[in-house]
Amino acid sequence: MAAAQLTTDRLAETHRPTLDQALETIRTRAYWSPHPEHPKAYGENGSLSAADGLAAYESLLNSRFELDQPGTDGWTGGEVSPYGPALGIEYPHADIEVLLPAMRAGMAAWRDAGPETRALVCVEILARISARTHEFAHAVMHTSGQAFMMAFQAGGPHAQDRGLEAVAYAYAEQVRTPQDAGWSKPQGKRDPLELQKAFTPVARGIALMIGCNTFPTWNGYPGLFASLATGNAVLVKPHPRAVLPLALTVRVAREVLAEAGFDPNLVALAVERPGEGIAKTLAVRPEIRIIDYTGSTAFGDWLEANARQAQVYTEKAGVNTVVVDSTDDYKGMLSNLAFSLSLYSGQMCTTPQNLLIPREGITTEQGPKSYDEVVADLSASVAGLLGDDARANALLGALVNPDVKTRLEAAAALGEVALPSREVANPEFPDAVVRTPVIVKLDGAKPDDEAAYMSECFGPVSFAVAVDSTADALELLRRTVREKGAMTVGAYTTSADTERAVEEVCLEESAQLSLNLTGGVYVNQTAAFSDFHGSGGNPAANAALCDGAFVANRFRVVEIRRQA
Amino acid sequence: MAAAQLTTDRLAETHRPTLDQALETIRTRAYWSPHPEHPKAYGENGSLSAADGLAAYESLLNSRFELDQPGTDGWTGGEVSPYGPALGIEYPHADIEVLLPAMRAGMAAWRDAGPETRALVCVEILARISARTHEFAHAVMHTSGQAFMMAFQAGGPHAQDRGLEAVAYAYAEQVRTPQDAGWSKPQGKRDPLELQKAFTPVARGIALMIGCNTFPTWNGYPGLFASLATGNAVLVKPHPRAVLPLALTVRVAREVLAEAGFDPNLVALAVERPGEGIAKTLAVRPEIRIIDYTGSTAFGDWLEANARQAQVYTEKAGVNTVVVDSTDDYKGMLSNLAFSLSLYSGQMCTTPQNLLIPREGITTEQGPKSYDEVVADLSASVAGLLGDDARANALLGALVNPDVKTRLEAAAALGEVALPSREVANPEFPDAVVRTPVIVKLDGAKPDDEAAYMSECFGPVSFAVAVDSTADALELLRRTVREKGAMTVGAYTTSADTERAVEEVCLEESAQLSLNLTGGVYVNQTAAFSDFHGSGGNPAANAALCDGAFVANRFRVVEIRRQA
Repeated sequence: MAAAQLTTDRLAETHRPTLDQALETIRTRAYWSPHPEHPKAYGENGSLSAADGLAAYESLLNSRFELDQPGTDGWTGGEVSPYGPALGIEYPHADIEVLLPAMRAGMAAWRDAGPETRALVCVEILARISARTHEFAHAVMHTSGQAFMMAFQAGGPHAQDRGLEAVAYAYAEQVRTPQDAGWSKPQGKRDPLELQKAFTPVARGIALMIGCNTFPTWNGYPGLFASLATGNAVLVKPHPRAVLPLALTVRVAREVLAEAGFDPNLVALAVERPGEGIAKTLAVRPEIRIIDYTGSTAFGDWLEANARQAQVYTEKAGVNTVVVDSTDDYKGMLSNLAFSLSLYSGQMCTTPQNLLIPREGITTEQGPKSYDEVVADLSASVAGLLGDDARANALLGALVNPDVKTRLEAAAALGEVALPSREVANPEFPDAVVRTPVIVKLDGAKPDDEAAYMSECFGPVSFAVAVDSTADALELLRRTVREKGAMTVGAYTTSADTERAVEEVCLEESAQLSLNLTGGVYVNQTAAFSDFHGSGGNPAANAALCDGAFVANRFRVVEIRRQA
Repeated sequence: MAAAQLTTDRLAETHRPTLDQALETIRTRAYWSPHPEHPKAYGENGSLSAADGLAAYESLLNSRFELDQPGTDGWTGGEVSPYGPALGIEYPHADIEVLLPAMRAGMAAWRDAGPETRALVCVEILARISARTHEFAHAVMHTSGQAFMMAFQAGGPHAQDRGLEAVAYAYAEQVRTPQDAGWSKPQGKRDPLELQKAFTPVARGIALMIGCNTFPTWNGYPGLFASLATGNAVLVKPHPRAVLPLALTVRVAREVLAEAGFDPNLVALAVERPGEGIAKTLAVRPEIRIIDYTGSTAFGDWLEANARQAQVYTEKAGVNTVVVDSTDDYKGMLSNLAFSLSLYSGQMCTTPQNLLIPREGITTEQGPKSYDEVVADLSASVAGLLGDDARANALLGALVNPDVKTRLEAAAALGEVALPSREVANPEFPDAVVRTPVIVKLDGAKPDDEAAYMSECFGPVSFAVAVDSTADALELLRRTVREKGAMTVGAYTTSADTERAVEEVCLEESAQLSLNLTGGVYVNQTAAFSDFHGSGGNPAANAALCDGAFVANRFRVVEIRRQA
């Protein structure tokens, strides 16, 4: 192997300050990000400008995506943008009998490099991805259906932040135990017993990262980088409709690994042929010792039950609730909720679904508001937010797949429609399916309605559930989190007692709670280094992004001791 | 509830320095223990003397062990000492439909107490146990069959050390995230987005600790204290033959919890009626969210497969190997190995079973030694060590159950016996079954022999396996660890290349390695705060004592954020 172009010294000089700041921030949980959110921040210092990013993306279309990984036995791919166009990209299809052994070959050297070098190589990968954020933004937009600005931010800097956060946790966890230790045990008048001990973090094996359709990078990077930074090889299995953002990621990772003197096969891509279902095949291979998965509850549960040889980290589905009890900023509450329901057409695992509103109404600084008034005012707020088609397109993006459209259309039959969904034309992409959210009134006490609001209805569908009281809302919240899980809980109240009561439910049921958000922070958004995404303690997910538990079991520590 | 006698201030004054030293030592991994190993160190400052400890133990015999826990629906117990006498103790039998809900009642207050208070309460529990080490020593001796000194040390200070180590890890993990954080995100010329965030470690639920027969306290304390310190209630289900040490532990824990103002039902005991099999019933109860288990591979695998609602930490069986390649201290090697094979009649999960010796022999500072010579010299070393009956009794203890005796007797038929097992009379306890180890010669290349050495033969049975070469030994070591697991690996070599090769096998297969031990440290012994017990990365155990992974998933962090 040629001498490494990226030496450890150079990596440390460039990236150690970033790693240190990340390590500091996961302790303070203050605001920080090294990855600019604004598109205009790019185009200098080697990063792609908006125009260059678009050109880079377009150059990928209608061609083969070359990756020099072993075991390529054909080409496959059929991504079609939720905005209409087919991407026309073919990816290498891997013979896993060749690829998996090749991925193991470089693991000893990757282990011997140690935690710091692994972390710095990961930071370099993220830095190169960051420099191409404009290119990634188009790739995310045209696979997830996110609007451009969201694809740019959530698919770019926010995803990179989550990746860096995982690298920081992985590094911190590995260096908690020293590399070496002397041990001297007194023996009274005799000589002490003395040992020299060496501690080495060792990988579990090959990690499998199973990507999702809606947030291929944001949900994919934490597992990918946590596994790589802890010494594992990582096989990336993208969702068949969202391959490109992860294929680009794998390409960058392989480039950096090779330049740093490591085997590029430590990161590889496994794209499936239509209907091949390789996730199931890969998940139970003995070489696969870690799995990260974001997607349906059914497959997440299957992985947890069947991939017994692996550590399995899942983010599945939940039913997110907002309890509306009272507010001293009625307009702020409505506009905050309206935005949360609208962003990316409600296709976030964190989007609120059930709004629990007392049927007697709520108190506000504008006086009491009846249940019907609250629902009507919220509907008006959503309609106002999305009244302008350009703004609607920029917020909603496109429906990611036809199932979402089917669910949306069926939702109108579940109850009284307070706000009908509206079709929005997208002048740039006439084939995009763009819809505003529907708000359906349900009665918390009716069994038929319960069947609706106690199921996840993924997409732009919200239920305004009339409940007998706030106490009733809290019991329903508790039952929903316990039985269905939740990625987020929101609550609005001016009562200290109610606040304490909703906090108690969330503490007891392990749900992340946002209280009285009326400004520019939304219940469905979390910030890396500060907010936890999911709790790992309710059925929506068995892990949180990102904490010690997310990284600590991706490696083991081998001790070698000898007489001093 | 009455005002707490043990205030937080008093606990902090007494125990915070101990906690701080434990936190420091898990970072440096130097030698440290706050729990004296020598029996004569006890008897002052409130701790029981040898005589008082024995009297306390004897006062427990032939009576009911009262515990004021809810749901007692009868009495059960039938412990018989491996040294002969029946203990005659009856324990409360619990109606779990009453006990489990009662255990949950105090969890909110235990959560609200926070990580530091929980840790200090745990340290107080350990301190009170430490003061009664002489009493515990007899309880451990007469349930495990360990000789008195081993029961005293391993069942007393060493177990307490492992408990304290778990408390330190649990505390450190919970305080990695601050209780509160301010978050301010710049918005260019607009006001920053500002949030106030609170982070609370929350329990998973009720933890079930399933104790083992051989090391009820040493193997039980890490899980018990890790779960309790992270906010969980803990239900202790002892092995039916080793109830007393854990019943005493539960009693002390309940006393301390009550004195500190917490619900004593946070720790409770579940003793089973003969043949009741309550571990299986409890393990799949929805209230049980954490399980710690030490015991057979079969039941450990069953727990991992079936207790899907819980985090399951298992230490199962493995096949421990020592590779004998060469040495520059032949006598030291032999005496070190002889001690390891003899201690507690080889009834440790860390006792070496397979000694891999090249059939061409080894090199030593005394010149070359043939395979036959090495086996004969080792046999002589064991025979010498155990030649004196008093010393033999002090080292061997008693066989813990009749199955061990059956296996020992059957082992002689597996191959040529290099050292026959010898029956040792115990004048103090004539009914004790005391046996010296058998050493059986096997041929690594013979399939019949392979069936023997590739299975765990728990008890005082070792196989001197002739292999073609050291390289052959390393391949067999690799295969053994991969297929059967290992708690320990030992190796003797004067070759740097061989040392590196055996290290590589252990790094790749996640096994803990002791190199060239010829003095007073033995491959089957690990020290808390410094040595890892098991790796959690091979089939012998899915967790290590103690590391971040052992504690990080016993709690979750709930974030509550609100606009600042």
